[in-house]
This record gives sequence, C-alpha cells and structure tokens, in this order.
Amino acid sequence: MRSSIITLLTDFGLKDSYVASMKGVILRINPQSTLIDITHQVSAHHIEEAAFVLASAYSTFPKGTIHLSVVDPGVGSSRKPVLLVTQNYFFIGPDNGLFTLATKKEKVKQAVALTNRKFFLSQVSATFHGRDIFAPVAAYLSLGVEPKAFGKRIESWATIPFPEPTFKEGKLVGEIIHVDGFGNLVSNIDQQQLSQFSKGCSFVVRTGGRTIQGLRKGYWEGKKNELISLFGSGGFLEVSIREGNAQKKLKAKKGDPVQIKFL
Amino acid sequence: MRSSIITLLTDFGLKDSYVASMKGVILRINPQSTLIDITHQVSAHHIEEAAFVLASAYSTFPKGTIHLSVVDPGVGSSRKPVLLVTQNYFFIGPDNGLFTLATKKEKVKQAVALTNRKFFLSQVSATFHGRDIFAPVAAYLSLGVEPKAFGKRIESWATIPFPEPTFKEGKLVGEIIHVDGFGNLVSNIDQQQLSQFSKGCSFVVRTGGRTIQGLRKGYWEGKKNELISLFGSGGFLEVSIREGNAQKKLKAKKGDPVQIKFL
Amino acid sequence: MRSSIITLLTDFGLKDSYVASMKGVILRINPQSTLIDITHQVSAHHIEEAAFVLASAYSTFPKGTIHLSVVDPGVGSSRKPVLLVTQNYFFIGPDNGLFTLATKKEKVKQAVALTNRKFFLSQVSATFHGRDIFAPVAAYLSLGVEPKAFGKRIESWATIPFPEPTFKEGKLVGEIIHVDGFGNLVSNIDQQQLSQFSKGCSFVVRTGGRTIQGLRKGYWEGKKNELISLFGSGGFLEVSIREGNAQKKLKAKKGDPVQIKFL
Repeated sequence: MRSSIITLLTDFGLKDSYVASMKGVILRINPQSTLIDITHQVSAHHIEEAAFVLASAYSTFPKGTIHLSVVDPGVGSSRKPVLLVTQNYFFIGPDNGLFTLATKKEKVKQAVALTNRKFFLSQVSATFHGRDIFAPVAAYLSLGVEPKAFGKRIESWATIPFPEPTFKEGKLVGEIIHVDGFGNLVSNIDQQQLSQFSKGCSFVVRTGGRTIQGLRKGYWEGKKNELISLFGSGGFLEVSIREGNAQKKLKAKKGDPVQIKFL
Repeated sequence: MRSSIITLLTDFGLKDSYVASMKGVILRINPQSTLIDITHQVSAHHIEEAAFVLASAYSTFPKGTIHLSVVDPGVGSSRKPVLLVTQNYFFIGPDNGLFTLATKKEKVKQAVALTNRKFFLSQVSATFHGRDIFAPVAAYLSLGVEPKAFGKRIESWATIPFPEPTFKEGKLVGEIIHVDGFGNLVSNIDQQQLSQFSKGCSFVVRTGGRTIQGLRKGYWEGKKNELISLFGSGGFLEVSIREGNAQKKLKAKKGDPVQIKFL
Repeated sequence: MRSSIITLLTDFGLKDSYVASMKGVILRINPQSTLIDITHQVSAHHIEEAAFVLASAYSTFPKGTIHLSVVDPGVGSSRKPVLLVTQNYFFIGPDNGLFTLATKKEKVKQAVALTNRKFFLSQVSATFHGRDIFAPVAAYLSLGVEPKAFGKRIESWATIPFPEPTFKEGKLVGEIIHVDGFGNLVSNIDQQQLSQFSKGCSFVVRTGGRTIQGLRKGYWEGKKNELISLFGSGGFLEVSIREGNAQKKLKAKKGDPVQIKFL
C-alpha cells in the first residue's frame, strides 16, 4: 500500500505563500504526486478543530494516501515531528494531538519520530517545519521510502482530550464540537450512542434554550426557519435550519451543551 | 469524447471537510482523475449564482470534461440527481436548475436520472449526496462508464428563470446579475442585444442613480473614481471603476436595474 | 529544463469563475499540466503584495516550473504581456513590476514580449488577458514551445521600487512589508543586513511604540501575549506573538517603520 496522493491540512490560510511553498517542496521531490487540499482555514493554532476536520475527511481517500497536517503552535520547540502509520493511511505532522480523532478509528500500527535529517530540507528553520520537514518527508514517503527510514520507532504519541457525551439524570448530555459553513451545529453525539440510551423511546433535543422535537431524515423536512435535529453526514447529531443558519439564529458556539431528554 | 478532468463547484466553503470528502471519493474510484475547483464559495443555497458562475467557466475546459456541481438545498428530498450530456461536456448534480444557463449554450443530447445504486457509495446519507452520489458517479463516468448505465433516460429536467433584458419606452432595461470580487457590476445585457437595439446610435447607461456616457474598451480607459461601462470578459455589459470598486461606490446589489437609453 | 508544472497567482479571489477559466484554457492546450495555486487572494490591484508573495514561494518549485502571475490593473492598455526566462524558471504575466523581487534573486536570461497571436485565444478581450493571453502562452510553453516563438526579445522590463532598510544615527531602519495571516509583521530587514550592522552587538527592535529585547529562535520562546522578534521562514526579521496576533495587538500595517537600535 503506497499512494502518490498527499492531502494537506493547515491553519495557514490562502493569502500567504506558505501552502504553495509546501507544495513546491513536495513537487521538487516527487513531481508525480497528487496534492489535495483538505483545508487551510483551520482557525489559527486550533489543534482540536484541525483534528475534527481531518477525522471527517481522511477515510474517503484511497488506501495508502498520505495525510500531511500542520497546525503547529509549538513549531521549533521540543515537540516531535511524527509519522503515524495505520492500516490504511499515513499521517505526518507535529506530535501535538492533531491525529487523535483519526487514529481512534484507524489504529496506529507504527509510529516514527522524524529525526533523519537526510529527508529534511538542507536548512531547517525554527518557524516553518511544514516546508522544511513535513513536506519533504511526505514527498519521500510517496516515493516509496520505508517509514522506519525516517527515524526511530516510538511507542507513544500525543493525544488531546475530546469531550464525550455523558448520561446523567435521564439525559444524554453532549456539546457542539463543530459549526460548519452553513451554520449547522454538529454535536459529539453519534447514532450508536443515541440508540443505546433511547432504546426506541422518543426524545427532544435541547440547545441554546430551545427544544426541538424528534429527529428528521434530512434538511428538506424542516419548515422555513424551523430548528430541526438530524444525523449529519459525519454521523453526528446536528441542529440545523433548512436553507438557514442555526448558528446565527441561536448565537451558538463550539462547546455549548446539547441535551437529549427521553420522554 | 471522455476526459478524466472533473471540475467541482459547490457552496460548501473551504473551511469544512466537505469538498475534500468529495475529492477523496473520486480519487478512490479514479486515482488518475484531474480535479479542478471552479468555486466552493457560492453563497449558501444560491442556485442562480452557481448557475451563473458555472456558465462563465465551463466552456473553457477540454471537450469531455465532467462538470460536477452541488448547490443542493433539496438534498435528500424527491429532487432527482441527474447527469446531462451535451455536445461537449457532462454535467452532474441535483436537478434543480443549476445547469439552466450552461445548457442554454450547450444543448442537452441525453439526460439521465441517477438511480443505479451500484455507482453510489454503499451508504447514502440524506444530507450529503455530493459525497455519496454525485462524486462516485462523476468518478465512474471519468473511467468510461456509459451515461445510460447510471439510470433511466429522462426527457425533461429542471430549469430556473433568468431575467432577460426588455425593451420599453425607447430603453433597454436589464439588471445586475452578478457582482464580482473586484466590485464590477455585471448586467444581463450582452453585446448582441445592445447592438440590435442601438443600431449604431450612441447611448448612456443608467444604474444606481448615475448616468454613464458611452462605452469603453477596457478598465484602463477610466479615470480615477470614474464610473465606466464596458463589455466584460463574459460578454456582458458591466459597470466598473478602474482599480476601484463600483459595487461599493454605488452600494449596488444583484437585481438592481441597469438601463440603456439611446440618444 | 521544462516542467509541466504551472503555478497561478492572481488577485481574482475564489468566488468568481476567473481562476477556473484560466485553468480550463490551460488544460485544453495541455491536459497533462499540473496546476498549483500560489494564491488568488492578493488585495485587488496590489502589484507589490503579489511580488512579495511570489518571491516567497517560487523557488521551492522544481526547475523549469512556469510561474503565471496575473495582477493586472493595466489590462488591455499598452502595458506589455511578457515572458521572463531565468536560470531556473519561467515567469509569465503583465509587464508591470510583478516579477521585480523574484528576478532579483533569479537573474533574467531572456525576456520576450508576448506578441505572437498564434499562441493567444482566437478572441482576445480587453479585460481578461489572464484567460486570453497568459494562460494559453503558459500552456504552450509547458508543451515545449521555445520562448522566442512567443514574440520579440526585449532588453528591459518593468520593475517597481521596494523599500530597502537604511542605516542612520546608529539605527537600522526598515519597515513592515507584509502582514501574514497569523498577524506576524514581516519587515524588510534580512539576516545578512542585520549581522553586517550589529557586528555581534546586542540590540532592541522598535515598532508601533514598543521595544522588543533581542532575538528569539522560534515562536515557542515567547510568553503569552509577549511581543517577540525573530527571523521568519522567508529570512526576514519579523515581530510576532506566540499563538497570538501581533498585527492586532499593535494595530500595525504595511509601511510602518521597524527600527533596530544597537546597544
């Protein structure tokens, strides 16, 4: 399993030269690689947000795809650059928890601290490891270099905590973990968790001081301006408005509680 | 005629995982496809805006290009997913009028309702047909699958009305159909229509309470802060300011009238 | 040296059809070309900003890469369309100074005014040479057409002035030439200039009414909210805040002075 597809996910934005510099470095090493942007608009330094977006997209890609993710507030410090190899994919980036959610579903088979400077640019800056370390390593990996060639095997790597829904006083309590570009409020409650606790009972969803009856199949079932809840494309319960913006209506934000009350 | 170039146009924005998920699905089916973004910044749910942007770009691409467009407020409802085959291109997306303008110039030779689940992802969500239906269909089409394999031939498909300029009381009356990123106000009056009515007479352009004399060839003919009118790169009359922003100056918006008064 | 990689840098934004139209034209001529965006979010008509971003990214790309840059306020006027050939790269765009910084480091070996209409689209608009002239020329160049085939050799081309730091009254005085998406304030003072004047002395950096002690290696050395100075990934002195936004804190903008005072 080895693909020449490399995805890129950063918080660099699209106005500066940073993303292009990473791509230039990759293409200089492997001009045949296929470069696909996941996003470059992660909020600056938000590892958690990056982890969520990566986890939402990585598994659609072909086996062997190299996922290069650089949201790296600790660049240049002692945090390690890493390569995590799973059953189906490669993940390259700073060892700061960025891969926590993706590697929950994709168990890590091999983890390597990137220490072999042979695969870095000849000059490594203290501020842009995306260009100087991660991009060239991804490019060499796409050419077939073995993971172990990049450095020492490590047995542990950083993870960050993600809130899990809890069940108390007859309610399942989760929170908003993502607000998408349409204003849909994505919670951390998935289909399996909900059915485990609902046991077929009906329920209401409460968030932002509002109570939403039951569950819809799709956005089109909502009426104009009506708050609805449904399972979104990532498998999580979300609160939405058909052709509207639930975030604006509720002035909701990441971290706000979402309660399921069983009737 | 079959190309492995697939364009993507959506209202998904660039912050979320949605566009990348579509690309991942396509590359899993056809790793050799070439993916080109038209835009992902259509205003949410604005089919008309999407139709205009698609119509402005599609014909620059090679014969056989697959244009995959997903602005889909009715996702999951009874609106059909369709494939329209024209002389030169393939158009894939929801049957909601998105292809109205493009298929005015490119006559449809074959239209297919996408019903063959063999070419969908194994699980089809009710909220993300871009990933689950349109992306895999585009990918299989790029591999050479025949259009008729995707579903039943249909004889009609959705269109949406677009305003046409009218001639009344000696004036040609159109409207602003697009405001571009520079603030240029693009009207729905094209060169042929104008010359048909002007018959060589001179004229003034009126919009936003302002009167603009005659027609320039290019932006550079304008003076600093001067409103000018010219035919833009899409062949439509536009109101502009050289190195300035006509939209801001006039506080203009889509739908505002643009009048041509012949002298 | 000839690559099929073509980079694109414009001020067209990502909402309109303009960038896609250029890509469609290129792919119609050379479907095998690899298209990489540098940025399309240069501030409208800002040649200087474009020149800086291009200079920051171009040299990471493989030898033979074609850099197509279109920030073109004079489109349609008498400003020339040009191709500049350097030791390692090709630069295509309007002759307005866009390539000033890149061709400081990459000496121009051959300069050609693009006049051979055989390599343009059959209809050339007065408002969109990106699509009608520059894109097809880049595509034909990527297919191996010789530079001299595109037009007459020229001996001079436009450049624009860039501020250079000056040394007066014991201070090195530069200015902010770029504010990046993280709010880092990038000055025009490079490592060589600083060490030439500092001769190993220690110094303070002054900007926005603040005094910053000495030089850090990386962002991680800063404390929360502390203004620090360091050499950024482009080799210029920058003023930054670890995981913060120096631009917002100082309300700084391009052109603001940055002083180095030696102690």
